[in-house]
Amino acid sequence: MSDIDFHQLGDYIIHQISIDCVIFGFHEEQIKVLLLKVDEKNVWILPGGFILQNQDICDAVNHVLKTRTGLEDIYLRQFGVFGKKDRHFNEVEDEHFRKFGIEMGPDHWLRKRFISIGYFALLDYSKVETQKDKFSLECTWVDVNDLPNLVMDHKDIVEEGFEAMKNAFIKEYIGFKLLPPEFTMAEVQSLYETVLQEKFIRSNFQRKILGLNILDRLDKRMEGKPHKAPYLYKLKDDWESVRTF
Amino acid sequence: MSDIDFHQLGDYIIHQISIDCVIFGFHEEQIKVLLLKVDEKNVWILPGGFILQNQDICDAVNHVLKTRTGLEDIYLRQFGVFGKKDRHFNEVEDEHFRKFGIEMGPDHWLRKRFISIGYFALLDYSKVETQKDKFSLECTWVDVNDLPNLVMDHKDIVEEGFEAMKNAFIKEYIGFKLLPPEFTMAEVQSLYETVLQEKFIRSNFQRKILGLNILDRLDKRMEGKPHKAPYLYKLKDDWESVRTF
Repeated sequence: MSDIDFHQLGDYIIHQISIDCVIFGFHEEQIKVLLLKVDEKNVWILPGGFILQNQDICDAVNHVLKTRTGLEDIYLRQFGVFGKKDRHFNEVEDEHFRKFGIEMGPDHWLRKRFISIGYFALLDYSKVETQKDKFSLECTWVDVNDLPNLVMDHKDIVEEGFEAMKNAFIKEYIGFKLLPPEFTMAEVQSLYETVLQEKFIRSNFQRKILGLNILDRLDKRMEGKPHKAPYLYKLKDDWESVRTF
Repeated sequence: MSDIDFHQLGDYIIHQISIDCVIFGFHEEQIKVLLLKVDEKNVWILPGGFILQNQDICDAVNHVLKTRTGLEDIYLRQFGVFGKKDRHFNEVEDEHFRKFGIEMGPDHWLRKRFISIGYFALLDYSKVETQKDKFSLECTWVDVNDLPNLVMDHKDIVEEGFEAMKNAFIKEYIGFKLLPPEFTMAEVQSLYETVLQEKFIRSNFQRKILGLNILDRLDKRMEGKPHKAPYLYKLKDDWESVRTF
């Protein structure tokens, strides 16, 4: 999409539909979400975009994720649709767009009602190279429990995305996608304690996690500590088929 | 939507977005899905519709559900978005619409690419009064494991909806919404056996289900059999908060 001028974009996209991505990372005992700052007045938005008429929606989403994080093949899930009748992009003032040489006006396609399709993505924080777009001042990780001022209903989208992520974390064990491909049990426990906001006893936690039967223990241990080095684990290929009934 | 003529509908709706509803019922040891037959040549479609410019998307979905089933407050969940770039409503021939006095032509709004938002609904089969629309010949329950010929990607939508339903059935125990508000353990077991396609031993099944701690046993028993009448159960109000980790 980047090679199409914003003025002309309206001729190429499906009007009144957007996508918004709630991109989660795990770092220093925080679940972080990737946001774009669009204004010195501390106004933030979610990474998102539009769908070209000749583009599959999944390609549009992957384009957003790749552009903001540098990563491909990110674990993602569509979790909600935001379709209130008064959902207009009116909070971002014309003045903001004027700074980038865009004259909005009241009849601009971006001023119409938009239905937005929400996706959450889970990735390995350490691999991400964040990248702002030309309409924003920065692209930064923010603690999901300490969100700044977000435009429109973007705070609701983050919160619903976080609820959907937590629900799938508890019931479908997707959280491992926030870790590197190989991880220690201590990293898993720290992640669970962060998301569920409670402390677990190490031995009980390990028994419960291994009892899920979705992890393989690797033959190698974590590097750097030849003695007492912790075991490394990885997700089994068929981890998604685990049944809870 | 019913009071707007189909010719004029294009002036009132958001173009290129539709909703499709996979409505599930449980009857005679089958999971059934509600479909509309649109053609003597045995072509079927999902109940669905469009979103008026001044209508919340959830109201549009509830309107579809109410119109087809007569019911309100149906348990529903948005489960997917169908957004392939070649997703056109081209299989239903102009001839079909001509029968209802509608001249489609190649530039009609219904011929554009559509992104469809998929919802599944769970309801008490015995309460439903199905209602066809003016473009269809009948509105009928069909065994989800024995689907007829569906237009476009509607078969994929049913199958993805069924997968999403089964996943939530196993991991979030939503299946009780397919039963009447008060039910016996035998009805629960029959439902589980139908969805999971396996048989359970009665005592083990009962222990497992009651162990979930999401059911209340009522003081009354099922009517009709004064002696040995089975107990009735209902879902607890907070059943959705059950944790599996």
